[in-house]
Amino acid sequence: MQAFRIPPAGTPELAGLIKHKIDRKTKPLGALGMLESLALRIGLMQGTDGPRIHKPHLLVFAGDHGVAAEGVSAYPQEVTWQMVMNYLAGGAAVNVFAKGSGMTLDVIDAGVNHVFAPHPKLLDRKIAMGTKNFTVEPAMSMAQCESAIDAGARIVREMHLLGCNLVAFGEMGIANTTSAAALMARYTGMAAEGCIGRGTGVDDAGLTRKREAIRRALILHREVQGPLQVLAALGGFEIAMMAGAMLAAAQERMVILVDGFIVGAALMAAQALHPEVLPYCVFAHQSEEAGHVAMLKHFNAQPLLRLNMRLGEGSGAALALPLVRAACDFINDMASFESAGVADHS
Amino acid sequence: MQAFRIPPAGTPELAGLIKHKIDRKTKPLGALGMLESLALRIGLMQGTDGPRIHKPHLLVFAGDHGVAAEGVSAYPQEVTWQMVMNYLAGGAAVNVFAKGSGMTLDVIDAGVNHVFAPHPKLLDRKIAMGTKNFTVEPAMSMAQCESAIDAGARIVREMHLLGCNLVAFGEMGIANTTSAAALMARYTGMAAEGCIGRGTGVDDAGLTRKREAIRRALILHREVQGPLQVLAALGGFEIAMMAGAMLAAAQERMVILVDGFIVGAALMAAQALHPEVLPYCVFAHQSEEAGHVAMLKHFNAQPLLRLNMRLGEGSGAALALPLVRAACDFINDMASFESAGVADHS
Repeated sequence: MQAFRIPPAGTPELAGLIKHKIDRKTKPLGALGMLESLALRIGLMQGTDGPRIHKPHLLVFAGDHGVAAEGVSAYPQEVTWQMVMNYLAGGAAVNVFAKGSGMTLDVIDAGVNHVFAPHPKLLDRKIAMGTKNFTVEPAMSMAQCESAIDAGARIVREMHLLGCNLVAFGEMGIANTTSAAALMARYTGMAAEGCIGRGTGVDDAGLTRKREAIRRALILHREVQGPLQVLAALGGFEIAMMAGAMLAAAQERMVILVDGFIVGAALMAAQALHPEVLPYCVFAHQSEEAGHVAMLKHFNAQPLLRLNMRLGEGSGAALALPLVRAACDFINDMASFESAGVADHS
Repeated sequence: MQAFRIPPAGTPELAGLIKHKIDRKTKPLGALGMLESLALRIGLMQGTDGPRIHKPHLLVFAGDHGVAAEGVSAYPQEVTWQMVMNYLAGGAAVNVFAKGSGMTLDVIDAGVNHVFAPHPKLLDRKIAMGTKNFTVEPAMSMAQCESAIDAGARIVREMHLLGCNLVAFGEMGIANTTSAAALMARYTGMAAEGCIGRGTGVDDAGLTRKREAIRRALILHREVQGPLQVLAALGGFEIAMMAGAMLAAAQERMVILVDGFIVGAALMAAQALHPEVLPYCVFAHQSEEAGHVAMLKHFNAQPLLRLNMRLGEGSGAALALPLVRAACDFINDMASFESAGVADHS
């Protein structure tokens, strides 16, 4: 697997410069709340007091999960490829929201259990026809896991070369909240129960099967050590590919716009490999998935939106982009007290 | 004063139709959270299962307040007209955010203590050069209050005739959180203390003066009865004009996008006059102003954004518009399970 070198996000000097610029804008000190801290953070990521978003891309990584065989999801596995077709046709929520936010959407087949015809919006990076059932064996081999990370990194580097400086993450994969919950339990050391939710809306019987599957998996793989090894044992191809894509994005000082629970699990893997990735992350929303509040707490994250959504796909990330742009816009385009001739109270 | 006739927002039959349409979209039931209830509400306002936003306007109403003489604000009164000039020059936060959201911004001089040169973006609806100091006399006469309501209603009716179906509200007026807090105390019957915050960031001494001014005003005008009379005694020209504009917007079945604390106080006046206005309101954000949480509770409102902002101007409303558009977009443009060929779990 390739190495990642992630530079620090900004310097104390730059932080002081940005804060001063924000405080001279025609508004009471601190009155723009979270948008002020967001503008500061994006300035630090980009190394400038004039941050801007260019060519934002939303990447939807899709993969299938062997653990779906345990009956952990409300939907059958074929919904993964059917939804991929829906993304390619432009009919899903993430299409509608990405269009509204002016983002380019690409779909990546990281390992869907289906053979797709070529399509201009579909990147074929298939590792295999879905992972193995991790309640009985590792989800993937170490070689597959490293291939997925490398493939994700290459996708983001190509986008960076084309002028993109923000990459938003979304995903699709029936049963992938089961994988994400198991990863979260391992990476945080939390009790599994606090990581498990209903995903797309599994019923009580399904939720019981999900708990049981995760319990068995955590016992089976309890000897596995090391962040990459944990990812291979319990992850998914789309999750590993996102982790690699995030690490490459941080290395290129791009803004990483994190969607919900599964994207967060991918970030946990990335963070376990390289903790320096975190300063490049913006958290789009707090989802309704039960473990997400604890996950955001783990990242010490302030999500931009709380709309009680629980869809995945990157839908929350697409909805949050206008706020990211607004943070850049105000620091660049608002007048200062001096330039506007407005009396300052300080 | 003119009469308002506000039609009911939708029917139970239409609500059932819209809900069914939402539930057939390619997503788990309820997975879009607050956007689903928002889409339903906008559909009911517009009387259709295909709601759309056309020509959204953001109206910033500005007025001065005699109570500023009590030292209740962090800023001197001339900041009102200076900020109006800033809006006209495009340099304020609300300009930047409205542009980012694709809204037309207009500024209304409802009663600023300054003579402005004519400007294409400035509507001159000046009632007087600021209100009187309501700690010693009524803020305005009943005739002025009714004129302000009528003027606000006319502005919105003209916009409706030009094809606008969403009007967002913002305001500017040094000392207007003092007026808004006094109105809130009267319209809700709450203790004044729960309605009072720091506005643009007044210091402890100023906050004490603000509390004292409101206490004296509530005693002085304690015999005043009737929603219009309360508005005249304790309101502002920009607040009364917004109330009239809101009532006209509801009469025309337009979406009313409510910004923060002062716009909320205007809505309290409008609601006291015509409770039927409320179903046409969308609440943009929860501000940091101390009384705003209680105010939102009074309206039983779920704000779209919570960004710890406390700026006014309509800045929160401008930031929330993309979410309102997203709610309309998904109900119109997403595929259904049937049209996309995706297996439904139900």
